[in-house]
Amino acid sequence: MKERLFKPWQSKLHDIIYEADTPAGKLFDVLLLIVILASIILVMLESVKSIQIQFHAFLNISEWIITALFSVEYILRIVTVKKPLKYITSFYGIIDLLSTLPKFISLLFPGTQALVALRALRLLRVFRILKLARFLGASNHLVTAIKASRAKIFVFLFAVVIAATIFGTVMYLVEGEASGFNSIPKSIYWSIVTLTTVGFGDIAPVTPLGQFIATIIMVLGYGIIAVPTGIVSAEYTRKANIKDGIDRNVSNQLNAYPPDPADVDLNSLSCPYCMEENHRDSAKFCYNCGHSLYFIPKKN
Amino acid sequence: MKERLFKPWQSKLHDIIYEADTPAGKLFDVLLLIVILASIILVMLESVKSIQIQFHAFLNISEWIITALFSVEYILRIVTVKKPLKYITSFYGIIDLLSTLPKFISLLFPGTQALVALRALRLLRVFRILKLARFLGASNHLVTAIKASRAKIFVFLFAVVIAATIFGTVMYLVEGEASGFNSIPKSIYWSIVTLTTVGFGDIAPVTPLGQFIATIIMVLGYGIIAVPTGIVSAEYTRKANIKDGIDRNVSNQLNAYPPDPADVDLNSLSCPYCMEENHRDSAKFCYNCGHSLYFIPKKN
Amino acid sequence: MKERLFKPWQSKLHDIIYEADTPAGKLFDVLLLIVILASIILVMLESVKSIQIQFHAFLNISEWIITALFSVEYILRIVTVKKPLKYITSFYGIIDLLSTLPKFISLLFPGTQALVALRALRLLRVFRILKLARFLGASNHLVTAIKASRAKIFVFLFAVVIAATIFGTVMYLVEGEASGFNSIPKSIYWSIVTLTTVGFGDIAPVTPLGQFIATIIMVLGYGIIAVPTGIVSAEYTRKANIKDGIDRNVSNQLNAYPPDPADVDLNSLSCPYCMEENHRDSAKFCYNCGHSLYFIPKKN
Amino acid sequence: MKERLFKPWQSKLHDIIYEADTPAGKLFDVLLLIVILASIILVMLESVKSIQIQFHAFLNISEWIITALFSVEYILRIVTVKKPLKYITSFYGIIDLLSTLPKFISLLFPGTQALVALRALRLLRVFRILKLARFLGASNHLVTAIKASRAKIFVFLFAVVIAATIFGTVMYLVEGEASGFNSIPKSIYWSIVTLTTVGFGDIAPVTPLGQFIATIIMVLGYGIIAVPTGIVSAEYTRKANIKDGIDRNVSNQLNAYPPDPADVDLNSLSCPYCMEENHRDSAKFCYNCGHSLYFIPKKN
Repeated sequence: MKERLFKPWQSKLHDIIYEADTPAGKLFDVLLLIVILASIILVMLESVKSIQIQFHAFLNISEWIITALFSVEYILRIVTVKKPLKYITSFYGIIDLLSTLPKFISLLFPGTQALVALRALRLLRVFRILKLARFLGASNHLVTAIKASRAKIFVFLFAVVIAATIFGTVMYLVEGEASGFNSIPKSIYWSIVTLTTVGFGDIAPVTPLGQFIATIIMVLGYGIIAVPTGIVSAEYTRKANIKDGIDRNVSNQLNAYPPDPADVDLNSLSCPYCMEENHRDSAKFCYNCGHSLYFIPKKN
Repeated sequence: MKERLFKPWQSKLHDIIYEADTPAGKLFDVLLLIVILASIILVMLESVKSIQIQFHAFLNISEWIITALFSVEYILRIVTVKKPLKYITSFYGIIDLLSTLPKFISLLFPGTQALVALRALRLLRVFRILKLARFLGASNHLVTAIKASRAKIFVFLFAVVIAATIFGTVMYLVEGEASGFNSIPKSIYWSIVTLTTVGFGDIAPVTPLGQFIATIIMVLGYGIIAVPTGIVSAEYTRKANIKDGIDRNVSNQLNAYPPDPADVDLNSLSCPYCMEENHRDSAKFCYNCGHSLYFIPKKN
Repeated sequence: MKERLFKPWQSKLHDIIYEADTPAGKLFDVLLLIVILASIILVMLESVKSIQIQFHAFLNISEWIITALFSVEYILRIVTVKKPLKYITSFYGIIDLLSTLPKFISLLFPGTQALVALRALRLLRVFRILKLARFLGASNHLVTAIKASRAKIFVFLFAVVIAATIFGTVMYLVEGEASGFNSIPKSIYWSIVTLTTVGFGDIAPVTPLGQFIATIIMVLGYGIIAVPTGIVSAEYTRKANIKDGIDRNVSNQLNAYPPDPADVDLNSLSCPYCMEENHRDSAKFCYNCGHSLYFIPKKN
Repeated sequence: MKERLFKPWQSKLHDIIYEADTPAGKLFDVLLLIVILASIILVMLESVKSIQIQFHAFLNISEWIITALFSVEYILRIVTVKKPLKYITSFYGIIDLLSTLPKFISLLFPGTQALVALRALRLLRVFRILKLARFLGASNHLVTAIKASRAKIFVFLFAVVIAATIFGTVMYLVEGEASGFNSIPKSIYWSIVTLTTVGFGDIAPVTPLGQFIATIIMVLGYGIIAVPTGIVSAEYTRKANIKDGIDRNVSNQLNAYPPDPADVDLNSLSCPYCMEENHRDSAKFCYNCGHSLYFIPKKN
């Protein structure tokens, strides 16, 4: 699918839907935000039995109105974007589709109505509309710190799961069915509940040996929470220090130290035009298509 | 309302109530502290049924005495301050009013008696009386660090709420009513209980799939606690480093680095005279009215 | 009570009991450690009903043997120390007394037997015997960091208690007695359970509004755990950095920066002779009486 | 047992089993990973009663197949390693044996079948096969930070256990048997559950005094989690700073500061040939036997 030639009304609609530098564009964003929040409140109300029974007709009509609005928005988004397929297969494109589809399918299969709840995922668009990334500060150290720590946290969580598997197995052997540890998967579930210090108490050890092992699991879980916290905290400090110029000043002074590549923070925003991500932190324009990442000047 | 001319007794009372550099002023602060603590203990005792029944008369009389004392204090505060409206609409002014009002209203509407409990908010005045801010160290890095992290922690908590909404919706679809997940709002409540590792156990998943998703939520909640901790920790380290002179020394040496505006810590105290806040950390006098922030010399 | 002239047997016993540089002194320490652990295991076994019934005679005799040993040790400690009153009124002196007294009192008042369990406090002596402070590293940054953070953490916990009081009061008004929130103190207890993410679930909100407020409490508790962690982490980093010489090197270079008084770490050990504490971190001798803090050379 | 002369087929098998630089070696690793995961899923399925009854024959046969595969692997590992005794007594050697033995023993003593679950420990080999250590970054700060903090965290956990013992004893005296605190060990178990903020709720205080003490335990547990987190975080930051060259640059400049021995990170991998551990972080060959730590070139 090649790039399409836009007609004037398409350009105008594109500016309204995808951009926020015109009054109409800002109004659209605010309205969209309100409709998304309304749709989620609606789904919540529908799930409360007593409300569902009393206001059935009203809720059903409101649901159809919102579904219609979302469907129109979805179609307009496809029509006014240069690369529709890229939008459709993008993360937001799929969520937008999932927000409308279940209601239509429910006409054929009534049970699927509840899946409308998946539109809760549309809440993620709030981040983009409110430009919350801006709140995170210009340099977005946080995202960089988490990205830098990702592999380490994955290994840590992997270790936690392995520990839970081993402890769960041991607890299954020790406690047995009488206390609710009636299968290894359930024991592993209990181990995770305990290791993460959640502690529902739906299952709890009753034998002295089981309680002793539980004690070890709890102390371990209480102690190792320090590991991911330490990683993120240290990575974040490191990024912030680099930014503060401590590193750079010292290296300037020595005239020898090469610039740290970790200093090149990646922008978490995706291009509103070509959906490309991983821009440099200070990027104002997409490295892929040259489009502005924040404001899209009108093209006549 | 223009500034009023104070009569001598007003000046004297103002010194006693708002200041702490005279013996009478110090005595007033100590007495106020005792009465506040007594009033809160009284409210607690009243709420315990058995005590309420046995000591009804005594508790009721004590309650009226404290309400009278608070009312007198409230009126005197208004009478002896230069800008009464500023006090009345200030945070502490509203709390002071809320501490007395419900008891009077309860004469008309007996049910509102319990709202007297709102005077627990007067506990916040303890911070001012004890000058606890001083305990936090001269530079008050902590407050600055939290202020600097505020936006990031807000975004983090917002993400937590969105995650809880999505997980809650999924659990509602997976577990259904049999396990207590009988509406989306309740499922979201359960998600928050689980994600924050509180884990009451009043609702707990029973299906294998539900327990598996619960496992993911718990591990996620256990892992992401690292994020706010890392932010505050890193910001705090940064502020402390700047104060320690590491930054400044390095920049002095280079004669080029501009002073970091984040170094200008803001004092958390508000002016006892004009209620203005946001003074510099090392400020001894209010930047707005020139009044001493700590000791108020007598004006004859 | 003036300082006493020691007889030779007193000097010898003093070396064995209070010091560890002779074979006899080391043996004494090891034996004491074993007897303390045995006494605590004994107390635990006694508290288990089934064991208590079956082995009543054996447990009672063992208990009397250990009480006798502890009593002899207590008397010898008084006899062989230069300032007995200082020992008797010291922390360890009181614990040593509490480890023996309840058993004797139980002859008169049988119910007090259970108080023998207070000897669990003798476990603290393990720290001194094992010289665990040495494990903490030569500079004891940890203790210094916690000491430096003490005031901040106190203010933080004070704020937590105030928040719990206010939330507890609100939950009492919202939930009422039907859900178990039947008095303000109990509601405050529940607030602490929730705010600290413990979440027993013995009391849990059932009204939608109550669950909503609970959600806020949980998210708050989950978020503010970052504060003490951040403080300790940052203070610890600061102490470690100072020790690492970063600060000192930079200041040496500038020949102007005054030495940071925070660098003077305080030793957590107390003098084995005069019980004085707060020695400098690198101190080998007591600043008060000149006695060695670690090894006591024999005085002939 | 002296080093053995390898026959050609032994050399070949050794390369396949212990190494990963030949296609056959890589295939072996992948197959082993799949069999390990399959064996663990099998053990889990067996523990679920309904599945065990329905698919008894299939599960039993699969179990025997996997036991046979593991036994063959175990024998081949012994046959193809230069120092079999070192392998047999190594951590992985013991786990490998424990993965097969219970099934054979269950022929004699049927009850021991469940111990097959111990093969969950084989999951640890996944770390080696996937070379997850690589994920942790070249310098492996995390492992170094945890190693450096080990003694401090041990002392911390020791203090937690002592606190739990003391609090448990006090709660036993305060709450008594009516609330479920029917022995000191059980009270200590409850103290650990509370102090680590797990909070099952299977036991919960009911008396006002017990709830008050519980409040103290919870606030304490909530506050002291900061300690291990602070330690790991600070140590990790320190290691990362040293690596980043801040320390080194400053010391280079002064030409006086000795290199920090903590800078010599130890590699967590063990030699695939002689099982030796504690290699330098950047080591490519075993310091003990000169064998490559990652790729083992063929010896003809």
